[in-house]
Amino acid sequence: MPTVRLTVSDGDAEVRARVLALDLADDVTENAGAAVVDADLVVLAVPVGAMGAVAAEIAGELSPGAVVSDVGSVKEKVLNALMAALPGVIVIPAHPVAGTEKSGPDAGFASLFTGRWCILTPPAEVEAWQTERLADFWRLLGAKVETMDAAHHDRVLAVTSHLPHLIAYSIVGTASDLETVTQGEVIKFSAGGFRDFTRIAASDPVMWRDVFLNNREAVLETLGRFTEDLTALQRAIRWGEGDTLEALFTRTREIRRGIIDEGQDIDTADFGRPH
Amino acid sequence: MPTVRLTVSDGDAEVRARVLALDLADDVTENAGAAVVDADLVVLAVPVGAMGAVAAEIAGELSPGAVVSDVGSVKEKVLNALMAALPGVIVIPAHPVAGTEKSGPDAGFASLFTGRWCILTPPAEVEAWQTERLADFWRLLGAKVETMDAAHHDRVLAVTSHLPHLIAYSIVGTASDLETVTQGEVIKFSAGGFRDFTRIAASDPVMWRDVFLNNREAVLETLGRFTEDLTALQRAIRWGEGDTLEALFTRTREIRRGIIDEGQDIDTADFGRPH
Repeated sequence: MPTVRLTVSDGDAEVRARVLALDLADDVTENAGAAVVDADLVVLAVPVGAMGAVAAEIAGELSPGAVVSDVGSVKEKVLNALMAALPGVIVIPAHPVAGTEKSGPDAGFASLFTGRWCILTPPAEVEAWQTERLADFWRLLGAKVETMDAAHHDRVLAVTSHLPHLIAYSIVGTASDLETVTQGEVIKFSAGGFRDFTRIAASDPVMWRDVFLNNREAVLETLGRFTEDLTALQRAIRWGEGDTLEALFTRTREIRRGIIDEGQDIDTADFGRPH
Repeated sequence: MPTVRLTVSDGDAEVRARVLALDLADDVTENAGAAVVDADLVVLAVPVGAMGAVAAEIAGELSPGAVVSDVGSVKEKVLNALMAALPGVIVIPAHPVAGTEKSGPDAGFASLFTGRWCILTPPAEVEAWQTERLADFWRLLGAKVETMDAAHHDRVLAVTSHLPHLIAYSIVGTASDLETVTQGEVIKFSAGGFRDFTRIAASDPVMWRDVFLNNREAVLETLGRFTEDLTALQRAIRWGEGDTLEALFTRTREIRRGIIDEGQDIDTADFGRPH
């Protein structure tokens, strides 16, 4: 293993203090430009709407040959923002599909990426060996790597991540706004299923605001499909079509089985929550 | 503690064999009527659409003074079905808001009800001391007990359980039916949030079909509120209203906090899934 020197930059003094206290980096800087001097790899981990501004901050300090990547949940708009701010720089966007509802320095842990997929979306002008080097970086962190077009990434993640978050935020909002059922009742009886949705609805508000603003088209398209299917279910309930309901409820079990077989979730009941 | 004799009845020979193998009961019968002879308390644990038929099967064998209860997720239709099938019998419907996506004899465990709420919905003609005796039964199993009107129960559970299940089933169905994103991609990248929904969408299909058919009005009303709110979010995304999104995403965190403070979920990241 080569010697690695890790520099973290964050504009928030409290975050920098936690990074130091947790001994997460060799150096911690307030100024983003100062952090990238002599760096071979720069990974931007900010809300996707802030990528372009941070890229502009570091543009003048990058070494020749430095690779700039990120970990954002939207790729096409980020790729465009980074390339516009960093002409001539090797830009390879990345998205490790991992994480929890918590954020900040205390939310990380060594096995976060183990067995999870990291998606790379290199633009056409990046050479294959450069992408492969970044792929190796992620594999060393425990991830499996897949490469795809940025626009396709955004359609896939609209389904597997953005729409689920939107729905979770929405139903938690709905449940707290009813007249006939109190918020206290919603909380008390949340173990009937509702509490599952509150986990991802507790994710960082700014991070998720930016995801929806920057993956608008794919999210709206997927949402359209979802509401179409939900309306069909609504109609089946209204007309008492039990067979339609049972057929769907049987089919959805197979997807859960596939996710468990692929090692993307555990088969323990209730996510293994302690009882 | 009084001596308790527990008899289990199930129409499925495999289920009866598992109950015996796991030593879950003193006696196991195929015939429901035979199981209730001399019983002080009878608890029906079948899909809510089957409650009336099972009640009719046991009607002739009940001892005078026996209490008939259940554990179904819908209460008004169940109360009506039980009272129609069991004239003169003490009927006190119950709903322990607990359980996992698994069902059958192997899915139970001793601490399932610990700290969870059990809702009793006694009709007006049941005396308070009879309801209190059933409440004590549930408290001895570890549950906290609340009493409410059956119709109100159905409105509360439409929000905290039925709508979440309907949405989970629906999004899992949508995700498996897209043309631009394959099922393999949905499974691989499900850790972005989608996999959370697949857990409750793997629940028993017949049990859930019956819930929606028997709590139609409350589910449709709550679903109407949800789609109204979701449409407003859709519009905010289309018009780039970041402040609206961020305000909602900030507000939903408080509900999660309330659920954790009330002991209805754990604060460990990612539901404490092993990493």
